[in-house]
Amino acid sequence: MLLTTINNPQDLKKCTHSQLYTLASEIRHFLVETLSKTGGHLAPNLGVVELTLALHYAFESPKDKLIWDVGHQAYVHKLLTGRRDMFPTLRQYKGMCGFPKMVESPHDVWETGHSSTSLSAAMGMATARDLKKEKNHVVAIIGDGALTGGMAFEALNHIGHERKNVIVVLNDNEMSIAPNVGAMHNYLGKLRSMENYQWAKDELEGLLKSIPAVGGKLANIAERVKDSMKYLLVSGVLFEELGFTYIGPIDGHNIELLLDTMKTAKQTKGPVLIHAITKKGRGYAPAEADSVKWHGIGTYKIESGDTPKSAPTYTSIFADTMITLAEEDSRIVAVTPAMPAGSGLIPFGQKYPNRLFDVGIAEQHACTFAAGLATQGLKPVLAIYSTFLQRAYDQLIHDVARQKLNVVFAVDRAGLVGADGETHQGMYDIAFMRVIPNMVIMAPKDENELRHMMKTAAVYDGGPISYRYPRLPVRGVKMDEELQVLPIGKAEIVQEGKHVAIVSFGHVFEIAEQAVQALKAEGIKPMLVNARFCKPLDEELLFRLAREGYQIITVEEGSEMGGFGSAVLECYQRAGFDGVNVQMVGVPDYFVEHGSVKEQRLEVGLTAENIASRVRALMPVSKGVVEA
Amino acid sequence: MLLTTINNPQDLKKCTHSQLYTLASEIRHFLVETLSKTGGHLAPNLGVVELTLALHYAFESPKDKLIWDVGHQAYVHKLLTGRRDMFPTLRQYKGMCGFPKMVESPHDVWETGHSSTSLSAAMGMATARDLKKEKNHVVAIIGDGALTGGMAFEALNHIGHERKNVIVVLNDNEMSIAPNVGAMHNYLGKLRSMENYQWAKDELEGLLKSIPAVGGKLANIAERVKDSMKYLLVSGVLFEELGFTYIGPIDGHNIELLLDTMKTAKQTKGPVLIHAITKKGRGYAPAEADSVKWHGIGTYKIESGDTPKSAPTYTSIFADTMITLAEEDSRIVAVTPAMPAGSGLIPFGQKYPNRLFDVGIAEQHACTFAAGLATQGLKPVLAIYSTFLQRAYDQLIHDVARQKLNVVFAVDRAGLVGADGETHQGMYDIAFMRVIPNMVIMAPKDENELRHMMKTAAVYDGGPISYRYPRLPVRGVKMDEELQVLPIGKAEIVQEGKHVAIVSFGHVFEIAEQAVQALKAEGIKPMLVNARFCKPLDEELLFRLAREGYQIITVEEGSEMGGFGSAVLECYQRAGFDGVNVQMVGVPDYFVEHGSVKEQRLEVGLTAENIASRVRALMPVSKGVVEA
Repeated sequence: MLLTTINNPQDLKKCTHSQLYTLASEIRHFLVETLSKTGGHLAPNLGVVELTLALHYAFESPKDKLIWDVGHQAYVHKLLTGRRDMFPTLRQYKGMCGFPKMVESPHDVWETGHSSTSLSAAMGMATARDLKKEKNHVVAIIGDGALTGGMAFEALNHIGHERKNVIVVLNDNEMSIAPNVGAMHNYLGKLRSMENYQWAKDELEGLLKSIPAVGGKLANIAERVKDSMKYLLVSGVLFEELGFTYIGPIDGHNIELLLDTMKTAKQTKGPVLIHAITKKGRGYAPAEADSVKWHGIGTYKIESGDTPKSAPTYTSIFADTMITLAEEDSRIVAVTPAMPAGSGLIPFGQKYPNRLFDVGIAEQHACTFAAGLATQGLKPVLAIYSTFLQRAYDQLIHDVARQKLNVVFAVDRAGLVGADGETHQGMYDIAFMRVIPNMVIMAPKDENELRHMMKTAAVYDGGPISYRYPRLPVRGVKMDEELQVLPIGKAEIVQEGKHVAIVSFGHVFEIAEQAVQALKAEGIKPMLVNARFCKPLDEELLFRLAREGYQIITVEEGSEMGGFGSAVLECYQRAGFDGVNVQMVGVPDYFVEHGSVKEQRLEVGLTAENIASRVRALMPVSKGVVEA
Repeated sequence: MLLTTINNPQDLKKCTHSQLYTLASEIRHFLVETLSKTGGHLAPNLGVVELTLALHYAFESPKDKLIWDVGHQAYVHKLLTGRRDMFPTLRQYKGMCGFPKMVESPHDVWETGHSSTSLSAAMGMATARDLKKEKNHVVAIIGDGALTGGMAFEALNHIGHERKNVIVVLNDNEMSIAPNVGAMHNYLGKLRSMENYQWAKDELEGLLKSIPAVGGKLANIAERVKDSMKYLLVSGVLFEELGFTYIGPIDGHNIELLLDTMKTAKQTKGPVLIHAITKKGRGYAPAEADSVKWHGIGTYKIESGDTPKSAPTYTSIFADTMITLAEEDSRIVAVTPAMPAGSGLIPFGQKYPNRLFDVGIAEQHACTFAAGLATQGLKPVLAIYSTFLQRAYDQLIHDVARQKLNVVFAVDRAGLVGADGETHQGMYDIAFMRVIPNMVIMAPKDENELRHMMKTAAVYDGGPISYRYPRLPVRGVKMDEELQVLPIGKAEIVQEGKHVAIVSFGHVFEIAEQAVQALKAEGIKPMLVNARFCKPLDEELLFRLAREGYQIITVEEGSEMGGFGSAVLECYQRAGFDGVNVQMVGVPDYFVEHGSVKEQRLEVGLTAENIASRVRALMPVSKGVVEA
């Protein structure tokens, strides 16, 4: 196998073009084979095999900087930069990260996970290069989906203005994760079909030359027509207008063409955009046929493409309930920034095509668009992952909460997210939302309560309201038939008990309950509280606990700093209870890497064992033992 | 005076065109006169007098929705919608807000303050309109500067794709606050000069018709040439490519032309962009001559344009020190999102033109661009207002802190900001930054310490580091000659004392010190601590205080929820000190409106009196009295 001889980009450069095609084929086999056991982002990587080979052939990494936008398409890059042996550990605990990671290789010059950052990074690197009078190429590889993110436009605007030597490779597969939306997408579609126009170039120029110069005026016009030909012929006018030299569209699976184009790009002064058309999932029939499903995938059978049937998740409960709520209330609409599938909203969109708005990768716009809908009496539900809500933080504060608009935030992928790792952890939403005035913040203890919280949010009209839920299968609890409206700011006492109260916020109730079960066997019975609300807090209950001398353990799957536990502390101090022992169990102050949620919980101490042992330590009998 | 007869847009509609010009003149006089006493955003409003008259003449507000991007240019709108008598209270405590405000008038359908939100809001309102089968126009008025903000592009992309009936009025004055940057700006400049091309349209069409059809192929070409003429002739190709009908550029001070254009826009199907050229400061010579200075201004003398000499501010100390640091260390560069003047960086840019990067209104890009610079060993200082850092929150977490890059965050306008009011308060930076792993967070007690913190940040190489400072004049303390590197995470005990420790974070030290002074006269001597760091906290000192039985009052000018005081609480709980009384003095959980900083502090209780009375209440002698 040729692939086993490639341990770094230098090895690659010894290959002939024909060997590169052989390599492409071997790489596809390798990926399909390996990922069938580990899972991972198969379709995006199958789409960039030739592109990645050409990049490492044409450029000198790591001197030249290859910056992978989003980064889930960097597997081929990892394969070509000495990490072949790490693939069996892909996305596993302590194994190879599914995204570029500086500690893994000097060829990973920029880490990603979120979209649309590559052009800004490239501009930074190119600017530093020029200031330091160094010579190297800076290449950003960005998908057509990521290009709709506002910050990508901000960077294009800056790069184009400065006419900086940056090469942008637009990897256009007509998809982000979902099929793309937006005018930019339409525009790229038009470019794709422009290839036929190219033939006309020479003939047109001839025609223009042949126009007789009837006086100066007409000649003048002809001049201008010639000037304007670039609009017709070069066709990438939108990019050209922003200051880029546009090359394309080219076939992103044709290695010779890619190499020729990259050679041209390297010699061009100023910013260049190479528009390469690729096919997601290329070379593996099931992935070609359904690249949404195969964007990120678990294990599968190679022959059939069969995947294990997935259990119902919190997300699917959200999705079903959205349909129920929309039936009852015509004001309810859904907004998603490019995640109709991930958020489970596709059936909702099928049933209510006019009430689902996929705005593309555009979290800022998604949030303020929802605010605009709310000003007119609609009830928008913004379905957004916790980690991506960070992108809309100012919009949440300035546009939604400050105007006290009735926008519902359905915060998915809250807490530990597993294999996607540190870039995708939903760690901060509790902390960054609870400091915003006018917010109501909920988290359900299980999938049944998620439904009630959705109903509660749907009828609430006091401003923004949120509920957070994890990327996890449901617990399988009994589901109530009727949706209930929960009283705002009221917790639920699940079990009365003595001395210690476990106050759990959100889906980690599961762990708290396990701890209580374990303690039961030992005859220890703490109180168990399902907090339901982080804001407003159930102060009445918290004060009761303090007055009755309970010691408190707060449990949450989110940053301990500034989170739910912190809110409880503040509440007590503000009310003048300064002797209450509150122990916080949450996620400590570092970025938690990839692995299974179970492994991540074990690492950070979000376990029933940890909670149980804390309870034991606080129980008077246990204290007695210690003190003895 | 005609203006006194205009109490709502209906009155306006009775005017003749010539009366509208009279009104325009009267409005300019009114603004120049009134603002000379109150201060305010003079230049932007002088630029939109005719535009606003035309809008209220052509549209039916509030049925038609007028959405003012940024909103500081809505004074004329306020004048025409019944708020003339409120102008003497402009931007004053309990007076008229300097931005659109729903509670003031039903004509204010959307509140702003931050830039680039109007198009998203407009898309939301238009979508709601269509869903509800209502008929009205939605008009967003956006400046060319705001158009560079990524979320504006996200919205253009969405509006263009959906071909939604939205009218965008591009108020192009070639300025945001500072002269604009970016490729979009260059592009608009080109459009402005395109007017001459228009004449050619008819002649070209004639020419094309006259081309003999030499075989099908050539005819075909001619067809395509005709298609492509729009690129040459209509000229707004960038917007056209995104799906908009582009009309312009037109003279934004010509009322008839504006009215004609708006009429056309109202009849056009799909989104329309009207490109109006205006002049900031129009009609008042000093403001025309220096629209940066006159963008937002305090009081002034009308005849001369003289303004009171401004005292040195924290911002000017920052600016001077940046030059000092840059002299010593060639790695230091500065990045600003469109605020070179506001951040005080203009002299820095004059001295180091290659080391100041004004990226336009583009906070997300600014942050990640800085991250890119840092990967290459430079030491970028991102000068950004606290309230605008909210726009770069994800970039701060995902691109800077997660990669532990050495980016310095100079957080200006931290705390209460005075007359700009709730949209601009720097309330949340402490809370939203302290939950991010790897961050170091500082705040100086005065301008002298600001310099030391800047030096500390400049030599720190452990990842991101920030210092926050207010929009205030300096205290006038003695300045050290040498810049010092402060030990990370160490507080300063300013005065030893008994029973109570006031632990102050940042510039509100001023207040804490006043409280201590006042108490001295009464023979009460609390300890006074200048915390310097919110992260990492000086745990050693905090533990000492706890062990020695101090009661603690934390003081900060920021959200009490999740802020510095909250960090102190967490610190004690984590270390197992559960009996420490910590009282938090900060800004409570609501949006604080405009007024002077003094008034705002009084309102929220950030006063020496409040701190002093808390200290008194905690002193044993006082307790004795109470208990007696």
